[in-house]
Parts: sequence; C-alpha cells; structure tokens
Amino acid sequence: MTSKYFAGIMDKINDNSVVVGVLGLGYVGLPLAVTFAKNNIRVIGFEKSTSKAAQVNAGSNYIGDVADEDLKQVVSSGILSATTDFSRINECDAVLICVPTPLDKFKKPDMSYIEAASVEIGKSMKPGTFVSLESTTYPTTTENVMLPLLERESGLHVNDDFWVCFSPERVDPGNEKYKTDNTPKVVGGYGEEAGEIGFAIYSKAINILHTVESPRIAEMVKILENTYRLVNISLINEIALLCGKMDMNVWDVIDAAKTKPYGFQAFYPGPGIGGHCIPLDPFYLEYIAKNYNFDLTMIHTAGHIDNLMPHRMTLKISSALNRHKKSINGSKIMFLGVAYKADINDSRESPALKIIDEIAKKGGEILYHDPYIPRIKTEEGRIFTNTEIDETIIKTVDCVVITTAHRVFKPEWITKHAKLIVDLRNMIKKKSDKVYKL
Amino acid sequence: MTSKYFAGIMDKINDNSVVVGVLGLGYVGLPLAVTFAKNNIRVIGFEKSTSKAAQVNAGSNYIGDVADEDLKQVVSSGILSATTDFSRINECDAVLICVPTPLDKFKKPDMSYIEAASVEIGKSMKPGTFVSLESTTYPTTTENVMLPLLERESGLHVNDDFWVCFSPERVDPGNEKYKTDNTPKVVGGYGEEAGEIGFAIYSKAINILHTVESPRIAEMVKILENTYRLVNISLINEIALLCGKMDMNVWDVIDAAKTKPYGFQAFYPGPGIGGHCIPLDPFYLEYIAKNYNFDLTMIHTAGHIDNLMPHRMTLKISSALNRHKKSINGSKIMFLGVAYKADINDSRESPALKIIDEIAKKGGEILYHDPYIPRIKTEEGRIFTNTEIDETIIKTVDCVVITTAHRVFKPEWITKHAKLIVDLRNMIKKKSDKVYKL
Repeated sequence: MTSKYFAGIMDKINDNSVVVGVLGLGYVGLPLAVTFAKNNIRVIGFEKSTSKAAQVNAGSNYIGDVADEDLKQVVSSGILSATTDFSRINECDAVLICVPTPLDKFKKPDMSYIEAASVEIGKSMKPGTFVSLESTTYPTTTENVMLPLLERESGLHVNDDFWVCFSPERVDPGNEKYKTDNTPKVVGGYGEEAGEIGFAIYSKAINILHTVESPRIAEMVKILENTYRLVNISLINEIALLCGKMDMNVWDVIDAAKTKPYGFQAFYPGPGIGGHCIPLDPFYLEYIAKNYNFDLTMIHTAGHIDNLMPHRMTLKISSALNRHKKSINGSKIMFLGVAYKADINDSRESPALKIIDEIAKKGGEILYHDPYIPRIKTEEGRIFTNTEIDETIIKTVDCVVITTAHRVFKPEWITKHAKLIVDLRNMIKKKSDKVYKL
Repeated sequence: MTSKYFAGIMDKINDNSVVVGVLGLGYVGLPLAVTFAKNNIRVIGFEKSTSKAAQVNAGSNYIGDVADEDLKQVVSSGILSATTDFSRINECDAVLICVPTPLDKFKKPDMSYIEAASVEIGKSMKPGTFVSLESTTYPTTTENVMLPLLERESGLHVNDDFWVCFSPERVDPGNEKYKTDNTPKVVGGYGEEAGEIGFAIYSKAINILHTVESPRIAEMVKILENTYRLVNISLINEIALLCGKMDMNVWDVIDAAKTKPYGFQAFYPGPGIGGHCIPLDPFYLEYIAKNYNFDLTMIHTAGHIDNLMPHRMTLKISSALNRHKKSINGSKIMFLGVAYKADINDSRESPALKIIDEIAKKGGEILYHDPYIPRIKTEEGRIFTNTEIDETIIKTVDCVVITTAHRVFKPEWITKHAKLIVDLRNMIKKKSDKVYKL
C-alpha cells in the first residue's frame, strides 16, 4: 500500500523544495538545522524560548558546535529562520524533534517534552508530513507515545496520511572531528515508506546513513551506545578504587592495556559521570525493561557505582587532608574545573558539583576555578562564582582538587604552588609527595 | 645497586648466547618457545607430560597457533628441545613460566601450578637467572607468591642474585592476524634491572614491548583486558534477552550501533562465555580484592549473568519446542558446535556443554555435531561422540540448536531440512518461521 502523499514528498525532497521543521533549537537541534540549511534545504526552527528564537534570527550563535559564520550565513540568506509560533508546523513537510529527555528526581524518564512536542505537531501538521524523533528515549516510544498523540491530535492515520520515524542524535559536544554531517546516522522508519522518506531526507544533510527495520531498533541503538559507556566507565572507576588500595596507578594499567591491538577499548576513571546522556540514557532502558518484568542488572550495578563516586571522592579529599592533620571542616578547598568534561562550558550533572555539596555540608570552605563556567548552582542549591587563580590564592588553600582536566590548566604550576593536591584526572604526571591520585 | 650478575646476562642477551627455558609447553608456552627459537635463541622447553615433551622432540606439533613446519625446523636444527627433567633449569639464563591458572570448583584461584613451578625453578636455578611469569593471575602474585618461593628454595636473594618479572601472555587462540611475535607485550620487572633484562630478552622474539613499573601493574593489565570482555559480553547478553522480550533482533541493534565512529566497540551475544580466560581471569581479581575489603560489583554482576545464560538458553529451547507442542523430555535435540568459539577445536568451559547437561537432565535425547571435536565430556560427566549430519538425521531431530558458529556450517541447508532451529549465534540471516533467535 502506497500513501497518496508518498510521491509528493519524495518529489519535494528530490528537487530540494522540501521544508524541514526542527523542533527544539538546543545543542542537537541548532547544529541539525544549520546543517540542513547549509545544504540548501529550507529550515524553520521551532523554539519555546523567545530569546533563543530571537538570537537565531539575529544570527547570534549560542551553541559551541555551531560555527558563528555558518549560522550568520544561513540566517542572512533566509534559508533558516526561527519562530515561537508552533502553528507554522503546517508549513513543513518534515518535522524533526530535538527536545530534552531528562530524568525526574526519582530517575524516571520525563516524557513531558516528547509528549508536548507530539501534541503541538499533531495539532498543526498537514497531511503528508514526515515526523522524526531524535531525542534519546526508551524503545517503543515512537510507536507507543508519539504516534498515538499525533493521530489523536491530527485525526490523521499513520502511513496513510503521515509517517513516523526514529533517528537518534549522536551529538558529542566538543568533538572536533565528528559533527552533525559526518557522523553516520541511524534511521528507523515505522513501515517501509517511512524508512524511504527518512533516508531521502536525512541524505540531504548527513553523509552516511544506516537504516534499520523499525523505530524501536533505532531507539535501542542509541541507548546501547551510551549504556556501553556508562558500564565501562563504572567498571574502570571501580577498578581505579581498587588500584588505589593496592598502590597502583590505574592510568599506567590502562595505558599498557591499550597496547593490545584488538578486543580492548580504553576508558578512563574520574570522579563520576556527567553530562546529559551517559548518566541518563541507560535508565530509560531500565525503566521500560521493568514493563517486561526484566531487570537490567548491569545498568543497575553501574548506576550504583556512579552514585557512590562523589562520596568516595570526598573520602579521598578527607584522607589527603588527614595526612596534613587537617579536617574537611574548616579547610579551604579549591576545585579546579567544574564542567562535566574537559574543555567544554557545560556543568550539567557534573560530578564536581556533587562533591562540592558534600564538602560544603561537612564544613569545608569552597572555592572553584573554571575558565569556562562563571557561576555554578549545585543540586542542593548552593551558588558559587568563579575565582581567578594566582600564586597568592593557590598558596592559601589547604587542598586543590582537580575535578576537570581542562587543557588550559598548568600541572607544573599547580604542583609548584599548591600545598596539597587531589588529582582525580591524572593531570599531574610527575610524582610528588603533595599529590594524591584517584 | 647493580647486581654482580647484571652485566653477564645482558652480554649473553646481546650476543644471542642466552639460553631461555620455557616452563609449560601448552597453547602459550609452545608458540613462545618456537618464536624465540625462530629468532636463533636456544630454548629448552620444560614439560611434565612425557608425551608432550616427546612430541616436541619429534617435531610433531599439537598446538593450532604453531605452524607445523616451524616446529619441525627449530627442533631439527637443535635450537629447541624439550625435557621433563626440571633440574636442567640450571642450564637456563632466563625462565619463562607458562603454566595454567584455573579456578577450583568454588571459583577460587588455583595457584598450585604457579607454586609448583616456583619451587622447581628455585631448586635448580643458578645465580644470575631471570624468571618471568606469564600466567594470568591476580596482582601481587609475582611479588608475594612466586618470589618468596624462589628465595626459599634457592637460598638466593632477589635483585642481588636473580630477578623476577611479570609479562602477561596475550594469546588469542585462532587469531589469524595477531600471533606471539606481533602482539605487543607488557613487561613489568621487579626493580629497574629486572625491567631492563625483561625488555632485552623479550625484544629477541617480540616486535613491540611496553614496560610498566612493577609486576603488579602488568598483572592488573591482563586482568583488566579480560574483565573488560567479560563485562561487555555479559552486558550484551542481558540486552539480548531484553531484545527477545521486546521483539527486536539484537544483532540488528549492534550492527547499527557499530556505525558510531568513536566511543563504541561491538560485542555479540551468545549462549554464555567459554574458554580458559574470560570466564576465569576476572575472578582472580575478585579474589584478591576481598583481601583489601573491596567488592568488585561489576565483575560479580557479570558473573551472575554468565552463570544464568545456559539456563536461559534451555528455556529458549523449551519455548521453541512448546510451539510444536513438544516437551524437552522425550525430544531429540541436536547441538551444532560445541567448541567455545567458532572455528577452533577447544571445548573447555564451553557453554554448549552446560546446556547439554541441563537438557539431558530434563530428559532430552542429545546429539551433537562438531567437525572439530570428536568427543565431549560435560561438567557432570556425560560423554557424547560426534554425529555426522546428513539430510536424514537432521530431518528426524525435533530441534537443532546452533551453539557455535563454525564457518563450515551451512545455514541455508540447515534451514531447509530442520524442523525447528534455535539459533543462538545469529547464523541464519533469512527470516523463517522455523527459526528462534537468542
């Protein structure tokens, strides 16, 4: 059965007259919108935030992975525009959803953004629209959450009047090699036509596509990728803690294991897992698995290790201070780096913030320095602003804790001037009595 | 402090007059001995088994990773010989230990082979001997198990009169690309001189060496490599079981995830983990961790999944038969492949044997076909011999279970003739009502 709209949308794709809507102009949506626009596909960006929409329309970039001049160029040429008016979805032939999928405080999936997006699209989309979800979520979401809302709001029927697809975003913020266009993209259409349209549309912007036979497989793909990372980071964190007890530098172990030319991939330990993907995505899978009476014990165990890391790091700091006959209570402790990974300006889910909360509760006096993050607010609501460091300040603090390995930090200079250093990122390679490693 | 024997051994290494003893001529020791001998280093192989020693001296090869003509050539030229007389260790300048390190029935390390080897070497070695352990074992074994026995039996002092080192074997049976000489080797000497001698000796046979600062780091390296594999195979096995419940082919998920060009390494599910490394090595680490009051929860969880796999596979077979209104009890079930991995002739720790035990206990009539394994004995002592397959036989069995994906198997032919197939290795790509996947 071929939908009567199928030929129409394929023609528009083929002659580049297709209009693509991107819903959500964050760290996934804006690069995607710009990539399509750079390939001469008209894009309308839909964004709830008036200020973000205005910024885009002013050609003013706010996403690290987008080149300022690229945004300026596609906005000034009129091929990309942003709007807060979701009824304009009826101008689009394809809508790509790039909304957040966070966890609530009980680590349960918060589907409200996907649901709201589905309702908005369902209300306004015209017959013959292709809708693709890119937000990381548990398998069956496209079929069982998005699709019914689209049908209910639009009164249209899937595969007769519109198509759905899941195609996971694979954005790695700060990755200098792999951007939107050169990262292969997985496309899982709901039915054959949806797969064909998805392939055709994404081909306009992405170099390499890989199609799978259903949205749920595409959904699982993304979660598998990030679960793999969560599990392996948790494994190496646990082994790092054991290495500490056995008087071994775990980084030396990893560097040697890396010489194995097959069957090994290096992961590095750290004070915990941060960002908006790895700490969250696997718990989407754990959630849906419960619905099938299935326990994902590896994810559960990995999550347990990850949860304990900030506490264990606090104990490391306490042990280090103890050697100087000091307690956390009353000590001045400076954290270097509060971003969740090196060389980026994002402190979401950063383990540094959790350690800071715990040290603060124990009476430690907190300072932090991060050249990319002027101000932080911890989970428990504590607010700090960036302290610039110089010789005088670093000499006065009781302990320096390296929580993020920004390349701008100078290990030799830190080692020279600090009294005591807890290095949770193996930044300081030279052996020194002052330095305690994870 | 330089040992008075240091210059002597280094001179012998430099002018190729060093004599290397290899203790244990199994799947690690024999390839190692042959590799040194091919590089014109005289090697004496020490082996408890009279028949193995005789075979080596007859130039008759019994290890898949050794080329028959290589063994013949180094034996006939006299550069390699084998003996059962361990007192001849006093003819060696360096002794490399390649003995088994199994687990006992309670999954505790069985150190008896390392201990016996250390005693034998200690009794006979001359001053100025370099002793390197290659057997996978927990960190601190070289320093705390081997070294004290060598000193006690020899009356010599480490680093004055002899040296010790740990250098893990990385043999991957059947790997066609990476053999002993071109797999980088990690060397961890106990003290600086031991590291230097170890580097010099292994350089004679191995292309790339990586030195680490202590034996315990080298010990941890090997266990990390195999723990990484255990954990990732267990993770994908668990996800495969969930995919089964959610009506997805997990292999499609993995193939799509593999298109991610960074941060992902593909592992494939199967009926369980076999062989002499991955199911064993991580439990060496778990064992020593207990001594440091530390629980390795990831290894524990992975082991738990692995333990359950044969049982879960039995349930798959039961479900498949159930669709044909049959029970395991009274059904004729044929297993294809009983080696622990494809294209090898080793059934140690093979999950197929565990499934066979469980099916047999439930009253199933067992047949197996494996072109590489003429006879099997299960853990519970059941003995079977290989059945050749033809159309007649395959048509009479109630269920064919593919447990090992030997390349010689013909998926189309199996699908054509079998009534019912449980494919635990994704060998059969074509969809068919007869086929149940893991």
